[in-house]
Amino acid sequence: MSRTMHLGLFLLGTGSHVAGWRHPGTVTDFTDIAAIQDICRKAEDGLFDFIFMGDNLHFDASTHPSYAARLEPMTLLANIAAVTQRIGLGATISTTFSDPFSVARIMASLDFISHGRAAWNVVTTANPQASANFGNAHPDHATRYERAGEFVDVVRGLWDCWDDNALHADRASGTYIDANAVRALDHAGAHYTVRGPLNIPRSPQGHPVISQAGGSDAGRALAGRTADIVFSVVQDFDAAQAAYAQTRADVIAAGRDPEKVTVLPGVMPVVGRTDREAFDLLAELQSYVGTQDALGMLSDRLGQDLSGYDLDGPVPELSLTNAYHSFASVMLARAKRENWRLRDLYNLVAAARGHWVLCGSAQTIADTLAHWFENGAADGFNIMPPFFSGGLDVFVSDVIPLLQERGLFRRSYEGTTLREHLGLARVAQPA
Amino acid sequence: MSRTMHLGLFLLGTGSHVAGWRHPGTVTDFTDIAAIQDICRKAEDGLFDFIFMGDNLHFDASTHPSYAARLEPMTLLANIAAVTQRIGLGATISTTFSDPFSVARIMASLDFISHGRAAWNVVTTANPQASANFGNAHPDHATRYERAGEFVDVVRGLWDCWDDNALHADRASGTYIDANAVRALDHAGAHYTVRGPLNIPRSPQGHPVISQAGGSDAGRALAGRTADIVFSVVQDFDAAQAAYAQTRADVIAAGRDPEKVTVLPGVMPVVGRTDREAFDLLAELQSYVGTQDALGMLSDRLGQDLSGYDLDGPVPELSLTNAYHSFASVMLARAKRENWRLRDLYNLVAAARGHWVLCGSAQTIADTLAHWFENGAADGFNIMPPFFSGGLDVFVSDVIPLLQERGLFRRSYEGTTLREHLGLARVAQPA
Repeated sequence: MSRTMHLGLFLLGTGSHVAGWRHPGTVTDFTDIAAIQDICRKAEDGLFDFIFMGDNLHFDASTHPSYAARLEPMTLLANIAAVTQRIGLGATISTTFSDPFSVARIMASLDFISHGRAAWNVVTTANPQASANFGNAHPDHATRYERAGEFVDVVRGLWDCWDDNALHADRASGTYIDANAVRALDHAGAHYTVRGPLNIPRSPQGHPVISQAGGSDAGRALAGRTADIVFSVVQDFDAAQAAYAQTRADVIAAGRDPEKVTVLPGVMPVVGRTDREAFDLLAELQSYVGTQDALGMLSDRLGQDLSGYDLDGPVPELSLTNAYHSFASVMLARAKRENWRLRDLYNLVAAARGHWVLCGSAQTIADTLAHWFENGAADGFNIMPPFFSGGLDVFVSDVIPLLQERGLFRRSYEGTTLREHLGLARVAQPA
Repeated sequence: MSRTMHLGLFLLGTGSHVAGWRHPGTVTDFTDIAAIQDICRKAEDGLFDFIFMGDNLHFDASTHPSYAARLEPMTLLANIAAVTQRIGLGATISTTFSDPFSVARIMASLDFISHGRAAWNVVTTANPQASANFGNAHPDHATRYERAGEFVDVVRGLWDCWDDNALHADRASGTYIDANAVRALDHAGAHYTVRGPLNIPRSPQGHPVISQAGGSDAGRALAGRTADIVFSVVQDFDAAQAAYAQTRADVIAAGRDPEKVTVLPGVMPVVGRTDREAFDLLAELQSYVGTQDALGMLSDRLGQDLSGYDLDGPVPELSLTNAYHSFASVMLARAKRENWRLRDLYNLVAAARGHWVLCGSAQTIADTLAHWFENGAADGFNIMPPFFSGGLDVFVSDVIPLLQERGLFRRSYEGTTLREHLGLARVAQPA
């Protein structure tokens, strides 16, 4: 089969547009499991590769509704596993505020529960507010990534402590486990000491899928070495091409095959019957955004205190800090290049938290996605509907058939596991 | 309505008998979610108040199959929430190897996902082997309970940071959250520093139900102060009466109403068409138990190294150590009183991990449970089938109708939340 797109659904409960919940008829409450189940079933009807949940570990009512009120990702996805059959189930868990034994175990558990559909999005948690909920100082960027690298190694090591089929449960002999087929890990590193093994067998995918989004040097190195999926944050084709080439180079530099890593830019599709109608819809959504918290939202998203600045003045020169390193650098570079006012930056953040906003008819959107896909800018996309479920519904009903007509997207699931959807083999046990 | 029993189903995947999985036709794999869903639906058909999952944080193939291979409890229960409607969903999370923000959040999430059916079983994790998977020394018994007390207070404080109905999502005004209705906790104690608030609203039950099983002085004090359900480990009526009275005294000493705390002894019912048949079934199950690991299993369960002792000699004098404090004291006291050999102790541990084993016809079992319930020894029972699903099926089909005929058990669920099943009001927000 020729190369086809991979699509994730970014499940940010009320939709990725910060004020999308104000659009009539949308989901307004990300604790409503029936509404979330409905969204996920629709994504599966649309043959998405996976649902993806980000996470945050603090309360913030000023930035996006999902930062104020949301379900915990692993319980949500384990529930969704019961009402779906094929779609992959990915979630963020922070390496800074969790521990490797727990993450290895809960991800293996989700992989069993979903029959091979689990994915772990590795983040180090940029926002320092999270630290205040965990009693510790927020480690600096370099330390966070040093820990993350060791953390991922330990998790993968724990996933390999069991040989496949070590659980015999042989009634006649009374042998439950082949004791020689389960080994300790005995990891003792700079940041973690973990004996292992896990108390759960090797899971259906061998290893759950690993995804990452970090764009700093350290983040890219980690992704190059360990990620199956890389989420990129880009706002135009040139940047996407550059990020795509960079990711492949990172993967090659780590001695891996770049064909086995799926690069997915995030995109908020705003779909109309015509391009004009789509821009009108975006204008409507933007009209819902209050500006009273504009500087607070920007400060949060960029990890910079912008409270002293003028929203109608130029984007100031800012030195990158500990938090939101890669995101801020993308945004500030573009602002400088295009001579933005601070309000321009705010509008982009308010619309899609800084991700690519693609406005147009279904045909325009399908054409643009195809252009990126066919010209070295993407292996697919992480779709961020501005609101639910309408913003997803129109993508499934109007855009996906156009991609299918071009032969760029599946017409049915061929495999049952997320690795199979991504064209990846099950991870074999170490020799 | 007159006082009726409460029943929990102890979901130890292959059944509570250590070799129950060797009985023909039983579930042998506690990672098989379809089999677990089937068990939980049957428990709901039987009108059980709740399913309860213990947990362990290390691999041990020598003690019970569930200590070698199991799903992680919160993902399992979140999945079960999707295939059941009414039954409560309780799980163990350790205060020693987790953090209050994460526990408060994931339990609130399960409470939303299940529409008010979540329960948290507070344990401090007696087994020191778990520590080796978390890179830290195992705290001593006193420190574990000191931390647990503060931990529970922080979790309950986090559950109260939101007022009810703080999530407005008012499209017209654009007010998503009532900012005055969500407050930080700002806890700074001896062991935990947690700012809060949670990033999830106040959950359907106000607070998820809290259960505990610790029998040491410190464990009893914590249960008296904070538990809605107390699991007791007793092996005969007199001990159950004493434990029941003790728990009520502990609750009163903490200034709470003992009518609002449900005391549930654990019991492994071995059901036959006649008493004789039931004893034959237990003998069959015991015949499946290999004795090669007997001293290892005893050492693990009692937190004592017994490898130098003779299985056919007397139970030695042992001083209680850090691990398994309360369980070991119950067992060793009885062994001394009844002049056991070490093998007698082992047989009991092998049969039901030291819990009460009740063998007999459905009538005998119903009569005995009724006797305990009506004579100050129990408010109900945590039912521990020796194997699944047959050991549950026969309890539902043969024992529960006898309890219903006596007016001692519900004929249908009257409420929808676990608190309602237990006769408890939703926890109101603090004034």
